Amino acid sequence: MTLEETAGKIRSMEIRGAGRIARAAARALYEHSMEAESADLAQYCQRMYAAAELLVSTRPTAVSLPNAVNLVMKPLKNESDLFTARHNLEERALAFIKRSEEAVSRIGTIGARHIRDGDVVMTHCNSEAALACILKAHQQGMDIEVYATEVRPRNQGHITAKTLSDAGIKTNFIVDSAARYFMKEVDICITGADAITVNGSIINKIGTSQIALAAHEARVSFVVAAETYKFAPCTILGERILIEERSPDEILSGDMRKQLPHVTVRNPTFDITPADYVDLIITEAGVYPPEMAYTVIKEQLHWDTEDMSLELPYCEEE
Amino acid sequence: MTLEETAGKIRSMEIRGAGRIARAAARALYEHSMEAESADLAQYCQRMYAAAELLVSTRPTAVSLPNAVNLVMKPLKNESDLFTARHNLEERALAFIKRSEEAVSRIGTIGARHIRDGDVVMTHCNSEAALACILKAHQQGMDIEVYATEVRPRNQGHITAKTLSDAGIKTNFIVDSAARYFMKEVDICITGADAITVNGSIINKIGTSQIALAAHEARVSFVVAAETYKFAPCTILGERILIEERSPDEILSGDMRKQLPHVTVRNPTFDITPADYVDLIITEAGVYPPEMAYTVIKEQLHWDTEDMSLELPYCEEE
Amino acid sequence: MTLEETAGKIRSMEIRGAGRIARAAARALYEHSMEAESADLAQYCQRMYAAAELLVSTRPTAVSLPNAVNLVMKPLKNESDLFTARHNLEERALAFIKRSEEAVSRIGTIGARHIRDGDVVMTHCNSEAALACILKAHQQGMDIEVYATEVRPRNQGHITAKTLSDAGIKTNFIVDSAARYFMKEVDICITGADAITVNGSIINKIGTSQIALAAHEARVSFVVAAETYKFAPCTILGERILIEERSPDEILSGDMRKQLPHVTVRNPTFDITPADYVDLIITEAGVYPPEMAYTVIKEQLHWDTEDMSLELPYCEEE
Amino acid sequence: MTLEETAGKIRSMEIRGAGRIARAAARALYEHSMEAESADLAQYCQRMYAAAELLVSTRPTAVSLPNAVNLVMKPLKNESDLFTARHNLEERALAFIKRSEEAVSRIGTIGARHIRDGDVVMTHCNSEAALACILKAHQQGMDIEVYATEVRPRNQGHITAKTLSDAGIKTNFIVDSAARYFMKEVDICITGADAITVNGSIINKIGTSQIALAAHEARVSFVVAAETYKFAPCTILGERILIEERSPDEILSGDMRKQLPHVTVRNPTFDITPADYVDLIITEAGVYPPEMAYTVIKEQLHWDTEDMSLELPYCEEE
Amino acid sequence: MTLEETAGKIRSMEIRGAGRIARAAARALYEHSMEAESADLAQYCQRMYAAAELLVSTRPTAVSLPNAVNLVMKPLKNESDLFTARHNLEERALAFIKRSEEAVSRIGTIGARHIRDGDVVMTHCNSEAALACILKAHQQGMDIEVYATEVRPRNQGHITAKTLSDAGIKTNFIVDSAARYFMKEVDICITGADAITVNGSIINKIGTSQIALAAHEARVSFVVAAETYKFAPCTILGERILIEERSPDEILSGDMRKQLPHVTVRNPTFDITPADYVDLIITEAGVYPPEMAYTVIKEQLHWDTEDMSLELPYCEEE
Amino acid sequence: MTLEETAGKIRSMEIRGAGRIARAAARALYEHSMEAESADLAQYCQRMYAAAELLVSTRPTAVSLPNAVNLVMKPLKNESDLFTARHNLEERALAFIKRSEEAVSRIGTIGARHIRDGDVVMTHCNSEAALACILKAHQQGMDIEVYATEVRPRNQGHITAKTLSDAGIKTNFIVDSAARYFMKEVDICITGADAITVNGSIINKIGTSQIALAAHEARVSFVVAAETYKFAPCTILGERILIEERSPDEILSGDMRKQLPHVTVRNPTFDITPADYVDLIITEAGVYPPEMAYTVIKEQLHWDTEDMSLELPYCEEE
Repeated sequence: MTLEETAGKIRSMEIRGAGRIARAAARALYEHSMEAESADLAQYCQRMYAAAELLVSTRPTAVSLPNAVNLVMKPLKNESDLFTARHNLEERALAFIKRSEEAVSRIGTIGARHIRDGDVVMTHCNSEAALACILKAHQQGMDIEVYATEVRPRNQGHITAKTLSDAGIKTNFIVDSAARYFMKEVDICITGADAITVNGSIINKIGTSQIALAAHEARVSFVVAAETYKFAPCTILGERILIEERSPDEILSGDMRKQLPHVTVRNPTFDITPADYVDLIITEAGVYPPEMAYTVIKEQLHWDTEDMSLELPYCEEE
Repeated sequence: MTLEETAGKIRSMEIRGAGRIARAAARALYEHSMEAESADLAQYCQRMYAAAELLVSTRPTAVSLPNAVNLVMKPLKNESDLFTARHNLEERALAFIKRSEEAVSRIGTIGARHIRDGDVVMTHCNSEAALACILKAHQQGMDIEVYATEVRPRNQGHITAKTLSDAGIKTNFIVDSAARYFMKEVDICITGADAITVNGSIINKIGTSQIALAAHEARVSFVVAAETYKFAPCTILGERILIEERSPDEILSGDMRKQLPHVTVRNPTFDITPADYVDLIITEAGVYPPEMAYTVIKEQLHWDTEDMSLELPYCEEE
Repeated sequence: MTLEETAGKIRSMEIRGAGRIARAAARALYEHSMEAESADLAQYCQRMYAAAELLVSTRPTAVSLPNAVNLVMKPLKNESDLFTARHNLEERALAFIKRSEEAVSRIGTIGARHIRDGDVVMTHCNSEAALACILKAHQQGMDIEVYATEVRPRNQGHITAKTLSDAGIKTNFIVDSAARYFMKEVDICITGADAITVNGSIINKIGTSQIALAAHEARVSFVVAAETYKFAPCTILGERILIEERSPDEILSGDMRKQLPHVTVRNPTFDITPADYVDLIITEAGVYPPEMAYTVIKEQLHWDTEDMSLELPYCEEE
Repeated sequence: MTLEETAGKIRSMEIRGAGRIARAAARALYEHSMEAESADLAQYCQRMYAAAELLVSTRPTAVSLPNAVNLVMKPLKNESDLFTARHNLEERALAFIKRSEEAVSRIGTIGARHIRDGDVVMTHCNSEAALACILKAHQQGMDIEVYATEVRPRNQGHITAKTLSDAGIKTNFIVDSAARYFMKEVDICITGADAITVNGSIINKIGTSQIALAAHEARVSFVVAAETYKFAPCTILGERILIEERSPDEILSGDMRKQLPHVTVRNPTFDITPADYVDLIITEAGVYPPEMAYTVIKEQLHWDTEDMSLELPYCEEE
Repeated sequence: MTLEETAGKIRSMEIRGAGRIARAAARALYEHSMEAESADLAQYCQRMYAAAELLVSTRPTAVSLPNAVNLVMKPLKNESDLFTARHNLEERALAFIKRSEEAVSRIGTIGARHIRDGDVVMTHCNSEAALACILKAHQQGMDIEVYATEVRPRNQGHITAKTLSDAGIKTNFIVDSAARYFMKEVDICITGADAITVNGSIINKIGTSQIALAAHEARVSFVVAAETYKFAPCTILGERILIEERSPDEILSGDMRKQLPHVTVRNPTFDITPADYVDLIITEAGVYPPEMAYTVIKEQLHWDTEDMSLELPYCEEE
Repeated sequence: MTLEETAGKIRSMEIRGAGRIARAAARALYEHSMEAESADLAQYCQRMYAAAELLVSTRPTAVSLPNAVNLVMKPLKNESDLFTARHNLEERALAFIKRSEEAVSRIGTIGARHIRDGDVVMTHCNSEAALACILKAHQQGMDIEVYATEVRPRNQGHITAKTLSDAGIKTNFIVDSAARYFMKEVDICITGADAITVNGSIINKIGTSQIALAAHEARVSFVVAAETYKFAPCTILGERILIEERSPDEILSGDMRKQLPHVTVRNPTFDITPADYVDLIITEAGVYPPEMAYTVIKEQLHWDTEDMSLELPYCEEE
């Protein structure tokens, strides 16, 4: 697949999901480097920077994309000969892909350590990382029970319920509104994240923050399972994560809307859970309290605090 | 309509809704008295007590039903001659019906005083009393805007949106999960109630307590609009309001459930909002803080604190 | 002083202060009755109702005024002969005046029982009732210390400091902004109230709610000292207390404002302290939790719950 | 037993416990009336008032004592002939005794309605009323489990554990410090009360307020079981309940204290739980939220709000 | 300007303001190095250390002063030849000055990203950094509105209002006490900081913590704009920031105080806002949650955790 | 003492206390290295790794033990010649011992800076580090007063009281249940810690979390004094600290338990205080907010984030 093809598929959302996008971008850079016939380092750099720019531009609000590109590209500027530069870049790309592929499994292993035998777990939406923790605990023989929400308007809860039922895990399926009602039965909430800001706010599927609030009210642990590339470096520069609103059709059909001339459908995809309501974040690199997001960005995403300019090349302004 | 017909229609839920049930019971008692051909007071009392018992037995968990019957029947035991007894009972029945019919309108008038020009109001489910406040404020020329939730699983929010749109009120329609996301835009939340306990807890449509919690978190007023016959005297004797669970079909079809053998659908109709999250309750008799529920029960429902036994004739055990 | 003179002085704010207004109105009704030369009861009633209406119209937002008039006038409608009607009305007027005159002293006696030897008390603004508690405790030989705020923009704190210093009470004088800073030193906060709503909210001098919030944060008692005629019956019918804004001159001179063309001075006189932050209310009739405001209105102000219409004769719409 | 003997036994704490003291006082008044050979009503009244004064003086801080005496004595002042006065007083005394004897059983019946099958209950100290709720639920066949605290320094938890074990109820015995640790397992806390103030504060065994705070933190119900004579009318007049400190010997022996010259043992018997942390109070007269304490005092203890003076004959100043 | 002149002007407060003091000290070190005629490195070091000590001693409580001196001086000890040592020190001094001069502008750029079009912003006191965010947002064309407090006792709010009005920004001017009253209208609060401790507490103008508390209560963002040299390294060693009290004349004139012999004016300049109430801190180096203060101190102020002694050369004991 | 002897004494708890265990392990490694007669580096490494494994296995749940062993052993793997390897390892062991011995004294010096003259301090259990702060403040001439709890079931409070009394510090001795009652008198709470997790939770003597909660409720500082080796690196990998339960005999004798067949004694040694209730942690390396635990683990315990595997060699699974 050529660079342009990958870029196209990310743009058209044929490739979707934070992990898949990140890995596709890293692979595209790897292959673009392999195919390079550059005469010297400068030419190679030019080629690769152009590729990076193209990739990042395809989905400016996807947090994992610039993180992947940055991890692969960043050290290039310090290289001094073409051969090493190519070799190192390609190695970084492969290493990123490998780590990303293992991330969910590692999160599952770490997260399962926060579940105890007999626990009742609540989850929201359909997060691969959150489910990995639950499935791993079940595989280890723990007797657990899950509350899974419906997740309006796109009903991702149906997929979650299927995954859990197929694994043989006792699951209760509830409407989103019933989360607080059942919270007293719950020992731990585990959700995923779409993005995590520098002050530890969790951007995740609409409804997450209400569940976190209800968990906080009832002294129930609220845990987020997320790969490190979900952390958003641009928030260090003050960037706010854009909360997209999706089509009103997901909530009310066009026919219904015609009968409701004074009604506007508001359909935000995500909400923001403040760090105060999050006990800890489980990444493939270990467990962090949300307030340590800066450290994760620096240590795991190799974001360089000295090299800071105020431009935000990889982030779209809200 | 005979007493038995009314009882049958309440039982079969042909007559439904707290107000309609209450008025139907009062009217049935009125007509049953009108048709009485009792020889003496004792015979009349026997006839009427039997009618009361029959009516109350039809929907033991409907709070308004025993309240209506009790208001009509209670003073009967102090009567000493047949003529006055009949006359008074019939007058009480008619007075109850009249007051009940006017209740929503009075609530609207009082509740509109708690809305200010320019306010953004959030409501949940489809409460006639809550909508009366909003519609009245709009009729008075206030420029208001409403957030109305979808109300899974039965989507009562569609009816609410229709009512508001037909009245020409600017309305935002959101999924239940988005209530906290938009709470920062909201000035006041107004919902109805299915029942109110002696310590001021509000039993209302599932999801209400989450919205109240989110309002409390953001210092947004949370107001309940409810006729006085929603207050539950039996809770003074320790009774807990039964939270029914409805059919799983409302949430997942039978076909889907078959593919999910380890999944149980939990479908509670109501949840419980603690008094701490409720600023005030608007009734047709005026405004009360939730902690005053006992006083409402005593003054408005004429519940007799001296005449207390521990039996719970009108309440079903949970 | 004729009725018209009294009405004029209340209107022009020559007579001011909740207690003085209330007593002046009661006295005006007393004298207006004494001077009556009515031929029969109907004529007398007409005369007195007109007087009541005139008085109430002079300061529609003063809570104590309709309360006083109502206490004097209410039972008149049940009277059947002129002589008794006059006699009783005049007696009620005198009784009200006497009770009102003793109210602050009674509040002082009761309130001092909530202060312990060695306590540090914080107060805000210049409330006669709140100071009565402090002064009484000092007179009883307790070794107490006071934090008094400056109370911008009109600096009523200067008067408070003078009263306390003259009484020989150790006083710390602070700017309003420093209330939270010193809260850790404080054992109890005592303020007055301008009005109290049916759900126990306290309307009092701007800044009161911030102090109550800071006291709540630090588990410091927050106590309100207020005569019963500060409770606002019209709030039972949904009325909201109007928060007046006073002249911008109190905050910025006209000359300064001319140099600040984009600046608007906002000068609200009062703010609203929610019942959640108030431990108890000390009245001349005893101690109540704020949630019992309805009972105070009914028992002490003889407000009749049965006689309710939705008109608000004595309250101005906000 | 003569009046003086009863008074002596209350004073020497031979008769102890709120219920037993109250009933002994009522019985003493009954017998003192039966034995009266008064020539006229005035003489009888003199005799009985002297008796009442003597009884109340024996344990000025026991809340139930003045409540019992007041309930028996209060209407005496309105009597107009000796025969009726005696008859009524004696009847009130017997009625009080009967009601008091039934109170715990009634509380048990009402309280058990707040326990659900499968619930885990935490209790503190050794309250007959709280245990009645638990035992009643167990007798009704509910499968419940209890956490009982040790209750330092006098280890009343040993008696509670014995009572529960003898009844065959699964009980966990823990040190007082472990209450928060196990709170996540608990569904409902039930304790007794030594006194309840007009603003709904609960005076109970030291440690109660910590458990209530931990329950509040974890959204666990906190319920108080108390006879109505535990409510303290004198707090309406501003009285504060005296928190006695008991002997240091209960905590450290005299020998140990000699080796610790700079150490003072502080041994308060009770602490104060604010109404905010109490969901409801179960009395023999029904369930009340703590904010309704004033109403309980008025309706159940027949305390007369009109007849208020600021003297506190039955309360000792703190 | 000689070293001694600069030291004198800092001591006499002719040079004031955290940024100006810090830059003056760096410049003084730069010039003192330029003028050095030291024979060898040892002599040079001695000269420069003496200069550093002199400068730091002039305002021991100004946090920015030791931070500037430390940044310039710290690496000196690792130098091995005179020429490089001088060169590097002078470069560090110039770099510090440049960065400090740009800091406010960078903060404005980053901070404006946290303001949205249509936002209402509250600010307190007169912080250059906080205003930079507001002005920048306005310059970018956002339609914003500001609430600015009066800031007793020195009325710095007048300067803030002037700055905002001159820029054409719609501004509401309020007394400090009114902050909570208007908080419901506010979307974001932005203030400066005088110092920030290692656990993220903000030391700022008296009144800041009350506003932060009120913002927290209403779920309004509270953001601090501060240059990195406001972070206080000595707090890592347990030092507490001294809260100075200024002259009572600022609050009450000497004449007034003479008439108030029992009154003491308390005039603390700053208060302490706990990290719990702060959403994030905007520095010229990016955005941090308050809990990351340690990392800022280490990364931005180059404070050396390995080189720790318990002496506090640059901090005055409280 | 041979390696085996040290291991034996740690296992048998003859050597106990986090500091003593850690130093004994470091000394054992030092001596084991000194006695090594290894032919080459590989042999030496084998010998030392075996020793490390033995030591760690003796008390798998003691956090300080693997931290000490890790600090001594970690860099060994990077060594390339035997002589240097031995030399460095022995130096690290001695350095650890020295630092550990000085840690409590350093903590005392830093911690005393958080106590002010006149402060009232509450402490729980018998922590050497916490007491060091109090004793140091007293030695510096501050007039302080302490509340010390009894600490059921093992009454470690007696030792604390003895230490404080011997030092001449005014001490109040209270039962554990009375902590909240006296909290209003307290300025600062200081306790020790048995372990600290990566998200800043404090594992300490049962009852600590209740005191922290009560301090939080009353805005009283809650400070933890702990050597850096109390931080638990394995929690980064998701490990949960095991809360041991000790013998029921500590709470109820065997004889008593026989009479209570339905009673189970639950005797957890520790509880978990969430970071939300902890203001700061005082270590020998300085002051940290609890959220910075990860940084402490990395910087002070030299835990290597790059070298992460998911195995938990030094931690026992809960």
